[in-house]
Amino acid sequence: MTILDDDRLLGTDPGLRALARDLYEGVRDLPIISPHGHTDPRWFAENKAFEDPSSLFVTPDHYVFRMLHSQGVSLESLGIPRADGLKTDADPRAIWRVFAQHYHLFRGTPSRLWLDHAFQDVFGVTDRLSATNADAIYDQIDDALKTDAFRPRALFERFRIEAISTTESAIDDLNWHRMIRDSDWQGKVVTAYRPDAVIDPDFAGFVDNVARMGELADEDTTTWTGYLAAHRNRRNYFKSFGATSSDHGHPSARTEDLPQDVAAKLFDKALHGTCTDDEADAFRGHMLTEMARMSLDDGLVMQIHPGAFRNHSDSVAARFGRDKGYDIPTRTDFVHALKPLLDAVGHRDDLTIILFTLDETSYARELAPLAGVYPCLRLGPPWWFHDSPEGMLRFRQMATETAGFYNTVGFNDDTRAFCSIPARHDVARRVDCAFLATLVASGRLDLDEAPEVAHDLAYRLAKQAYRL
Amino acid sequence: MTILDDDRLLGTDPGLRALARDLYEGVRDLPIISPHGHTDPRWFAENKAFEDPSSLFVTPDHYVFRMLHSQGVSLESLGIPRADGLKTDADPRAIWRVFAQHYHLFRGTPSRLWLDHAFQDVFGVTDRLSATNADAIYDQIDDALKTDAFRPRALFERFRIEAISTTESAIDDLNWHRMIRDSDWQGKVVTAYRPDAVIDPDFAGFVDNVARMGELADEDTTTWTGYLAAHRNRRNYFKSFGATSSDHGHPSARTEDLPQDVAAKLFDKALHGTCTDDEADAFRGHMLTEMARMSLDDGLVMQIHPGAFRNHSDSVAARFGRDKGYDIPTRTDFVHALKPLLDAVGHRDDLTIILFTLDETSYARELAPLAGVYPCLRLGPPWWFHDSPEGMLRFRQMATETAGFYNTVGFNDDTRAFCSIPARHDVARRVDCAFLATLVASGRLDLDEAPEVAHDLAYRLAKQAYRL
Amino acid sequence: MTILDDDRLLGTDPGLRALARDLYEGVRDLPIISPHGHTDPRWFAENKAFEDPSSLFVTPDHYVFRMLHSQGVSLESLGIPRADGLKTDADPRAIWRVFAQHYHLFRGTPSRLWLDHAFQDVFGVTDRLSATNADAIYDQIDDALKTDAFRPRALFERFRIEAISTTESAIDDLNWHRMIRDSDWQGKVVTAYRPDAVIDPDFAGFVDNVARMGELADEDTTTWTGYLAAHRNRRNYFKSFGATSSDHGHPSARTEDLPQDVAAKLFDKALHGTCTDDEADAFRGHMLTEMARMSLDDGLVMQIHPGAFRNHSDSVAARFGRDKGYDIPTRTDFVHALKPLLDAVGHRDDLTIILFTLDETSYARELAPLAGVYPCLRLGPPWWFHDSPEGMLRFRQMATETAGFYNTVGFNDDTRAFCSIPARHDVARRVDCAFLATLVASGRLDLDEAPEVAHDLAYRLAKQAYRL
Repeated sequence: MTILDDDRLLGTDPGLRALARDLYEGVRDLPIISPHGHTDPRWFAENKAFEDPSSLFVTPDHYVFRMLHSQGVSLESLGIPRADGLKTDADPRAIWRVFAQHYHLFRGTPSRLWLDHAFQDVFGVTDRLSATNADAIYDQIDDALKTDAFRPRALFERFRIEAISTTESAIDDLNWHRMIRDSDWQGKVVTAYRPDAVIDPDFAGFVDNVARMGELADEDTTTWTGYLAAHRNRRNYFKSFGATSSDHGHPSARTEDLPQDVAAKLFDKALHGTCTDDEADAFRGHMLTEMARMSLDDGLVMQIHPGAFRNHSDSVAARFGRDKGYDIPTRTDFVHALKPLLDAVGHRDDLTIILFTLDETSYARELAPLAGVYPCLRLGPPWWFHDSPEGMLRFRQMATETAGFYNTVGFNDDTRAFCSIPARHDVARRVDCAFLATLVASGRLDLDEAPEVAHDLAYRLAKQAYRL
Repeated sequence: MTILDDDRLLGTDPGLRALARDLYEGVRDLPIISPHGHTDPRWFAENKAFEDPSSLFVTPDHYVFRMLHSQGVSLESLGIPRADGLKTDADPRAIWRVFAQHYHLFRGTPSRLWLDHAFQDVFGVTDRLSATNADAIYDQIDDALKTDAFRPRALFERFRIEAISTTESAIDDLNWHRMIRDSDWQGKVVTAYRPDAVIDPDFAGFVDNVARMGELADEDTTTWTGYLAAHRNRRNYFKSFGATSSDHGHPSARTEDLPQDVAAKLFDKALHGTCTDDEADAFRGHMLTEMARMSLDDGLVMQIHPGAFRNHSDSVAARFGRDKGYDIPTRTDFVHALKPLLDAVGHRDDLTIILFTLDETSYARELAPLAGVYPCLRLGPPWWFHDSPEGMLRFRQMATETAGFYNTVGFNDDTRAFCSIPARHDVARRVDCAFLATLVASGRLDLDEAPEVAHDLAYRLAKQAYRL
Repeated sequence: MTILDDDRLLGTDPGLRALARDLYEGVRDLPIISPHGHTDPRWFAENKAFEDPSSLFVTPDHYVFRMLHSQGVSLESLGIPRADGLKTDADPRAIWRVFAQHYHLFRGTPSRLWLDHAFQDVFGVTDRLSATNADAIYDQIDDALKTDAFRPRALFERFRIEAISTTESAIDDLNWHRMIRDSDWQGKVVTAYRPDAVIDPDFAGFVDNVARMGELADEDTTTWTGYLAAHRNRRNYFKSFGATSSDHGHPSARTEDLPQDVAAKLFDKALHGTCTDDEADAFRGHMLTEMARMSLDDGLVMQIHPGAFRNHSDSVAARFGRDKGYDIPTRTDFVHALKPLLDAVGHRDDLTIILFTLDETSYARELAPLAGVYPCLRLGPPWWFHDSPEGMLRFRQMATETAGFYNTVGFNDDTRAFCSIPARHDVARRVDCAFLATLVASGRLDLDEAPEVAHDLAYRLAKQAYRL
């Protein structure tokens, strides 16, 4: 017995579905390139067993706990760690029961697809989770987790991950990555350079973070030139742990290309905590252009992820801290915002900038037209809330006609939930094959071209764009 | 002979359609919960016959007359009442003939579906309206209207309305509702508390309205505390006529949570007509938070309907007044706008706030992410221009993956056109069943789950969310 | 052998496709009304052979060269003319080979459909273009171009163009149009009045342009009244060459209805180059209202095409000038922007204003509600990047339910690429027929109504709206 339909997401019309299934067969088992995500390198460094089903599936997955919370389940009762470090006394099995009892809330959501996929394919569960079978499924997963076949490295291999990138802060010591590198394990786990904490004057602890970066890089980060040198140093340090990309999660897509003396003054203000909101924004914006210039030297691919209103609820942020499901997308302009950076370096074809958005209205209006002309620009896959069947379909429908397929970069999973990685790539492969089948069936793509495009979207474009 | 296709809106692929039809059979005859609308309580109070086909179908329905007007038919010739009270001499039959002659304008619109549904199901008309049969159909409907079976209460029962809410201004005396309550008729017709006229400093007659509220509530509404007390009083008065909700139609979704002394000063300025535009907006925004606090005490569900630019044409507003088809949607931000209210009361799970929008771009970007995490938030159905097959489908496609089904509240008809109520609920039931069939056929929902969701969307969620 | 599927774009479900095909058969061969575009009147005046395949298909088509450029092909190597007039030494055959080698980039784009259509239907090519057959196809097209059957007038007739409008600047002498008029050829090629160069204070050479307009009109354009008189004069001159419309490509949809003395002062500032950005925008906005007033006198239909950020890349604009694929859509407000103009003249039903947008979010939210009520407003077809199968479908899905079909104006091709004209009209006819078939199959339109609507959308509405 299975939970999932073998033909899920491959279209509903029988003719289309047959076409889509053929395409999907050709890409289903390709290795996974996971060039952007938030898995914990410690897993692969230590290779310890995951603790229990709830800490694998519920506690770290904001998609899961935000949905339960939206219907009145308290974050405390789900064992979400508190910002003050006080342990909640939530019992893993009790958390699991709450989760199972509310499983109907996930109907129609991608979380449901990802969870069912992991339950079935990773753990061999044969029935849909419910209040009735909650304990039995908990035990089944818990038993499996105690075996070697379910340790992180074994799952990594079983998931056919060819390369995965985690994301670390610019001031991370990368010790877990060092431990992986120094181990005899051959899995390709690389880092990505995420400098928000030392670029965003509004980031918690910005001044200390910059000082820490100075120590790590052995540069004087109280000066603008020392600060830039420290970035160069850290980028190279990250490269020595396999990094091929930097990642930038700013509130907006604003870029600036300020004269160096103006930028230096803003940096000084930022260090003294005297930036206005607009100055902080301008500084962030200018640093994107500096990062792009450094990319021209060191070859890191640049990812820009703008437009999230972080930590929307003051009280949840105070009690539980960051990343608790309260990051909400906002309207995002790219056309005016990116112009300074693009005027500075946009025609360098040795530069790759991958754009992501949480504002789908920009796909057809702004992003596809920009990526469809600027040589350095590529479009990242549907991000975050839009990493879903309908979200992926809208992306292809709205971006392809102007940007084509070859200004996009295949799929990123962007997840903290390890077992969802194969599930997410599988969803992307299915949706893309269904989209291609529709193009073929409606005379917009020839039958002999579709398998190549399917392969490109599932594997080659991500590998190439991220230089992995 | 029938006008309508029995399988309309149930999908076009034969397999999907069969699935959708099964689901639809299970919900087609469920009672109607109509928790938000603009029917006239006088109809049910007096139970007089409707006057004639034109005053039932054309004159009160802005969807109908705006379309005719857009193609050059004057509002005068359609018998639209003038703001100065001067009677137009438009003859009902002449209006009907103009309407019939232009019936092709409604091709592809939801009005066409609603009208055809009412003509066929309510009046037994068997041919599509046209210039040729205009008189015959007029006579057929007119004859029916003269019979008891077509009086408001009889139609209410025939439409299987379990509960309907009208909407009254905070300063309405609710005498028609009193008349219904005092009658021996058992139909459940409740009111809803709509305080825009006493909350919006820019509303025509604001100062007089506030004074009138003071008289009705026996409170001194020249003071801030008296004004708040009057609201509490009126809300309870509305509750005594069955109200379970308040309704707020502001130009934007802005909320504020101002210190009481600041709010009091703004109120004073509003009473003296000295608010700037921004102060008026801040006052409206603050009052939403006050209304939410009152809801915590009295249990009224809060509906927020922002984003209409009312009375866009100065000349039409001057000649014909409000609600003449010239209300146009505008871009609406929810993420920043709702934060003050949500920080104040957003985690109270005894509070329900139902959000509506005329800006579909906010479904996936803002509303589903907000409703998918804040315990108090629920999403209202597609509103106004979007209360249509394509509009409903877009809503489900864009909101479900992030908010799920259970952060939505089923269907509201929001109509002034009585005979369109069963038609609109029928459209919603069909579209939702077709959407669910697509989820099942594409492996995103199990076959055994779909009937429960269909039932929830058609009946249970509205009843529960609106506490009816 | 054929490149294109005969049933392309007619839907993928067999039942729907049969319905769509029937509708399409009824409109496939209708004459083409091309009321807005950018073909060169010189072609029809001189009737010389087109030079070679590359200068027919690659060099003038920004859709084509922007896509190649986005993947690192230099504009120089594609023979794009430089702004400084220096000739590139790009050889037509070499350009063609680069184009053929990159033909896979167009997978899934409308350019691919248009190109394949022209290759197959106009030139009889039987294989998909590729690096392998590049030379053979080049030769095949090149040979054809040398024959009389492929001269502009012959193609015009073969394309069944009933009427085409080119677009000329207000200060164009219309000599090519004169040459056409004075010839013995009967093809209907008219001009359209495009006054951006003399209305937009930010337009390159504005002051000189206004002076030139004065000379051409024999009016003193250093005064406001003389300037308006010159417009009237030029509009009539354009009318004498068949113009039935004016065309306005402003950065935003802003309109103003300023007192004449205020407008006169802005005009004076514009002539002295002292307008602020906002004053320049206000002047452009006011001139839309002046143009609408002139339309009431001379009957020209007004087209408003707002929202492009022109020449986004400074370096490309400096090297290659305007219209080089670097015009990017931006978010566009219509509701507030159009109010001054609509308050001034919006209820004149002898006025037709056709609105276009590059911001699809305005279809359902703003444009359909506005066009669905104001008598003077009509919606232009999907424009520019959205002139594509998915773009056209989204337009119908988002605009029809509120505006109906009869507040839209059929199809405009808006192209500089002559051979794409029949291809683009064919795509529009197919997509519209597929949309109508879906409405019929889902019970939203009767089978007997669909052929009439298909005919209206393919032919009658454009002819009527543009008064051609």
